[in-house]
Amino acid sequence: MTRVACCELAPVLGDLKANLAAATEAIGDAAAAGADIIVLPELATSGYCFGCAEEAWPAALAAGDPAFDRWAEAARGAVVVAGFAEAADGQLYDSALLLDGRGGRFTHRKAHLWDREKLIFAPGDAQAPVVRTPAGLVGLLVCYDLAFPEMYRSLAVRGAQLVAAPVNWPRSGHPAGLPCSEVLIAMASARVNRMVIACCDRRGAERSQEWNEASTIIGSDGWVLATAGERGRAVADVDLAMTADKGLSPRNDLLGDRRPELY
Amino acid sequence: MTRVACCELAPVLGDLKANLAAATEAIGDAAAAGADIIVLPELATSGYCFGCAEEAWPAALAAGDPAFDRWAEAARGAVVVAGFAEAADGQLYDSALLLDGRGGRFTHRKAHLWDREKLIFAPGDAQAPVVRTPAGLVGLLVCYDLAFPEMYRSLAVRGAQLVAAPVNWPRSGHPAGLPCSEVLIAMASARVNRMVIACCDRRGAERSQEWNEASTIIGSDGWVLATAGERGRAVADVDLAMTADKGLSPRNDLLGDRRPELY
Repeated sequence: MTRVACCELAPVLGDLKANLAAATEAIGDAAAAGADIIVLPELATSGYCFGCAEEAWPAALAAGDPAFDRWAEAARGAVVVAGFAEAADGQLYDSALLLDGRGGRFTHRKAHLWDREKLIFAPGDAQAPVVRTPAGLVGLLVCYDLAFPEMYRSLAVRGAQLVAAPVNWPRSGHPAGLPCSEVLIAMASARVNRMVIACCDRRGAERSQEWNEASTIIGSDGWVLATAGERGRAVADVDLAMTADKGLSPRNDLLGDRRPELY
Repeated sequence: MTRVACCELAPVLGDLKANLAAATEAIGDAAAAGADIIVLPELATSGYCFGCAEEAWPAALAAGDPAFDRWAEAARGAVVVAGFAEAADGQLYDSALLLDGRGGRFTHRKAHLWDREKLIFAPGDAQAPVVRTPAGLVGLLVCYDLAFPEMYRSLAVRGAQLVAAPVNWPRSGHPAGLPCSEVLIAMASARVNRMVIACCDRRGAERSQEWNEASTIIGSDGWVLATAGERGRAVADVDLAMTADKGLSPRNDLLGDRRPELY
């Protein structure tokens, strides 16, 4: 079994040092609790509600920044996926960083930007990666990427067993007793692709923006295994090997049954 | 507003005459209740649990069969979508028939066959249609087609305002307080495509097979508007014009934001 933990954080806008330290502490706590894959929110190092790119730049880091070595040390071999404001080639990206537990670093630059993010960040231009880690095959998405069924499907076709998704979900209403719409979409996507999906939301109002605080780990059958709740940390043990078998009946396979010529 | 009705039926296996009559009655009742679009279950004319193709053939009809004229009369100008066993070109298809309220007939042959259906029916080889009806632009899917996000997307891109889906959902378990997985997937798909989705399930055990009896009309925000419940009929009034605007924020459009080059 693979232990997955989503650790909600409340980043302070622009306070890189404090945010890095809070993330290091959360990673260390989750690793001490036996987590194999630790997911943190979108833009965990920088905060979210920047007014313009100029304001965001001082909170940006390169993927190779030595600051992330502290995270790798705290993780003690666990895989870490966290959102950060990435500086690269003179651009800012809203990226997910994956530390693979043995020194490797991989990134996904958010491909679908939400609203005012378009004024601050450049969209990623590469396919979302599926990273072979000691804990399993991990696909990366960031927040609004999760609204596109094509993204999940692309990861599933390339073998992803788990999708790790740093998110910042602005507070929204939904019918009582049901998950918020973002979780609903992820649940359906987990089921139709037979993948585990771990979404880590943030907390802490920022410039009066509040959040759903709806971190959720979803099993490969689409049902919720764990939510963060008051504690701010969702933890679930999952069998990632199960996700390799896409059989639905003696005669059905959820990827094999596709009819791409009709879509 | 457009009034949509899903009328659950309990077809008798192989009893074409009785099933056609029960459908005519349900259509007449729904039309009398003001329905503009009336959806019936999958294979409503034939029943489902055939052991082999030979057993199914006597309950098959051509799409042009005069029997469907009775449905059109009962519908009094409303659009009717119903599942039937279609005989065409020496093949059997698990099809949806659309009567457009002014004499037009359109079909969709189920493209994704479930389990033993593969022993009885041929899969459809045409893209699911979007039909311009007096009540709006109606896309057609049949049951297991609904498990493929690509199918909904293809209909949305081609302008579908409402997806009408005859289904036969075998009885399955799901967590208390949540819809069954088939409805969950349709809810997410309604939301990410901003389309209304009307799924009409069946009832009545057949050769010991029971059903979810989970007919559901889902709004274009993904939330459930009506379920059939004990009465066996779900009715909802929907604003189909709203589905044309795919804007999500001042800077986002759910179709325009797609990045097909990355999928």
